[in-house]
Amino acid sequence: MEQIKQYIEQHRDRFLDELFELLRFPSVSADPKYKDSVLKTADFVAGKLKQAGADNVEVCPTAGYPIVYGEKIIDATLPTVLVYGHYDVQPPDPLELWKTPPFEPTFRDGKIYARGACDDKGQFYMHVKAFELMMETNTLPCNIKFMIEGEEEVGSNNLGIFVKANKEKLKADVVLISDTSMISMENPSLETGLRGLSYLEVEVVGPNRDLHSGVYGGAVANPITILTKMIASLHDENNHITIPGFYDKVLVLSDEEKKALNAAPYNEAEYKTDLDVEELWGEKGYSTFERIGTRPTLEVNGIWGGYIGEGAKTVLPSKANAKISMRLVPNQTSAEITKIFTDHFEKIAPKSVKVKVTPHHGGEPVVTPTDSIAYKAAQQAITESFGKAPIPTRGGGSIPIVALFEAELGIKTVLMGFGLDSDALHSPNEKYDIFNYYKGIETLPLFHKYYAELSK
Amino acid sequence: MEQIKQYIEQHRDRFLDELFELLRFPSVSADPKYKDSVLKTADFVAGKLKQAGADNVEVCPTAGYPIVYGEKIIDATLPTVLVYGHYDVQPPDPLELWKTPPFEPTFRDGKIYARGACDDKGQFYMHVKAFELMMETNTLPCNIKFMIEGEEEVGSNNLGIFVKANKEKLKADVVLISDTSMISMENPSLETGLRGLSYLEVEVVGPNRDLHSGVYGGAVANPITILTKMIASLHDENNHITIPGFYDKVLVLSDEEKKALNAAPYNEAEYKTDLDVEELWGEKGYSTFERIGTRPTLEVNGIWGGYIGEGAKTVLPSKANAKISMRLVPNQTSAEITKIFTDHFEKIAPKSVKVKVTPHHGGEPVVTPTDSIAYKAAQQAITESFGKAPIPTRGGGSIPIVALFEAELGIKTVLMGFGLDSDALHSPNEKYDIFNYYKGIETLPLFHKYYAELSK
Repeated sequence: MEQIKQYIEQHRDRFLDELFELLRFPSVSADPKYKDSVLKTADFVAGKLKQAGADNVEVCPTAGYPIVYGEKIIDATLPTVLVYGHYDVQPPDPLELWKTPPFEPTFRDGKIYARGACDDKGQFYMHVKAFELMMETNTLPCNIKFMIEGEEEVGSNNLGIFVKANKEKLKADVVLISDTSMISMENPSLETGLRGLSYLEVEVVGPNRDLHSGVYGGAVANPITILTKMIASLHDENNHITIPGFYDKVLVLSDEEKKALNAAPYNEAEYKTDLDVEELWGEKGYSTFERIGTRPTLEVNGIWGGYIGEGAKTVLPSKANAKISMRLVPNQTSAEITKIFTDHFEKIAPKSVKVKVTPHHGGEPVVTPTDSIAYKAAQQAITESFGKAPIPTRGGGSIPIVALFEAELGIKTVLMGFGLDSDALHSPNEKYDIFNYYKGIETLPLFHKYYAELSK
Repeated sequence: MEQIKQYIEQHRDRFLDELFELLRFPSVSADPKYKDSVLKTADFVAGKLKQAGADNVEVCPTAGYPIVYGEKIIDATLPTVLVYGHYDVQPPDPLELWKTPPFEPTFRDGKIYARGACDDKGQFYMHVKAFELMMETNTLPCNIKFMIEGEEEVGSNNLGIFVKANKEKLKADVVLISDTSMISMENPSLETGLRGLSYLEVEVVGPNRDLHSGVYGGAVANPITILTKMIASLHDENNHITIPGFYDKVLVLSDEEKKALNAAPYNEAEYKTDLDVEELWGEKGYSTFERIGTRPTLEVNGIWGGYIGEGAKTVLPSKANAKISMRLVPNQTSAEITKIFTDHFEKIAPKSVKVKVTPHHGGEPVVTPTDSIAYKAAQQAITESFGKAPIPTRGGGSIPIVALFEAELGIKTVLMGFGLDSDALHSPNEKYDIFNYYKGIETLPLFHKYYAELSK
């Protein structure tokens, strides 16, 4: 541990400078106008892996953005850890809400502010520096492989193809990912589950053209009104989803699991104050942690229709649209839920409109068993580094490729994230605490150490 | 009648050329970037009034766009007709849906396609040509005044101020407006009523920032979901508006009035085919004409919230907005309904969100008595010109200034419109039929003739 801290002290500033360099690339995968930047980011990451000591570093082409690969095989008989991360980031909009520009990383109040600071550049880069540290101090205890992709924010469509075509190359014993958060630095935690995802776009079409709402209002169905009625019907008065069959496969937590989950620190007053809401909202009969970690949900991520510019326009629009996503829990599956939703939405549409449902990318829910070697190694690493055992938590977000890795490579994933809920992922003013960045670099070598030891 | 037809024949082409010139000005009052064009349009209209023979032609300044005035007083003992129209037009968007550019008037299949072709340039300009005709043939039988404003599409805010400040100047016996439609050229009609308008913008705010829908979804109210629930609750299963007190002041039609209203030709199959809808929608227990002409309605003109760009973004947005308007019938009043809506919307908002309601411009409903001299004059003019008596109809749209004229000038309005429902007002590919344009120029002098005669 001392050797680790010393190395970090000596290279502190460079570690930060390199991260800032990485953050300056506007590697927005969702928007084609950033294409050049995304490609340059891949090259940058490959260069840094090489400098850290990796062999066989490649920028592997795909039908979309490339996947950066690198490895260090020290002994074929030792276990292999496969580190996954992503170098692409969310779109920065709405730009006007950022205090400092999203691609000009700024240090403020002990935090690094930039799009991608936490999700995922700050987090995956800790692994590159932890790797460099172990190489330079000659303490790498197992084999390590890196797979850093560029399309996580747009559904990782080409990752599955890459994984399936490179099973030998990617052969490993466990996947290690830092793309989640802890309760706090005082209360370190380990995510033992992630929700799945089903994402769809719906379109409701009424009349074949925009109409004058005076001339036609009251005689013709307004697709906005119909869409609101349909969406409103998806939750009952207990905020329970009304789609038939939706909850059929949901695993209910045992009383013991519930107790462990709710034992994590939670201050409802602070939670509400942080969001500036008077009252929370959720499925009746479940605590906040249960709602986020163990219950499936349905959110409208976007809605639009009619005239949305300045001033008034009395139009009865031809159509209305919404983007809807559902978070899933074991044992729901993305394909099944997508179908259930589609069938239901088409069924509840009145005859006065036509409805179209278009599915986007999805992902399966996952749970990591707490009695596995990998989980125990992570647990020991955190206990030593933080001086406190991590609390097991169930995450609300989705990392679809975790289920992919299990299906294609037959291996589990350990989620050792060092982010915080306040990091504002996907929002303006995303940040990553400096303390967390260095703490991660300090803790990750301990994971490899204990993983190798427990694997003997 | 012969003399009228002959004059129109002789000046046919010029009448059309002048209208095309008028249509080329992009006089969009809602968008400040068109300011110069709006002002130039006012000058153009003033010039044409002067050329037609009007006296005291003025481009009268207001706090917004100017009002064009002109008059011909032939004898103080004769009645005076005040012609109202508006030279401003609706915004042209969405541009990509126009077959030919909105401000390049194009003649196609017997129709003039342009923004403003019908609403209101084609229609008010018929009055300028009818006036020229009467002047040139020395057949003007009464005094005439013109008041053509430039802000009708944005609420006519400065018209009221102008009217109140110029009551002497605007003194007249009746207001004549062409800004409505007929059933068809085979079934001419006269609008005897217009609905009122109440227009508001609502905003629902949940958390103080956009959130990651995985990290928070299920635990925090999504303002889009809440907004859809609130909007959905505004109509019950019979499409009756649920706002308490909403219908209190509504005058119910007598059986006789209902019978007359529903006697107008109506082909439901064609109505549906024209809009390409399988089923109509409306308040249970009322026919299409009753729903449009005699019942108040609530429409959502626009809705937006969250991520509405390309692809998927898993955001739980901070807020959601909608533009909502209600059409009113006698004896509802715009101020009262605006207050009733605001109070109700604020009341049904759950504690997990904050709601803001912002009113826009409104207008009162009006009815023109069919036993008045003005109505009879219009009726006779149409009977002579079309060879058939006009069917009395109740219009769905609003012309708020009609109630203003009654309140401030103490006079009624006759609505002699020559448009058609298919004109696509407020939509892409707005048009005005050439036949209707010339028919209007032919019919309007007859109105003045009979109005003067019946007034003796």
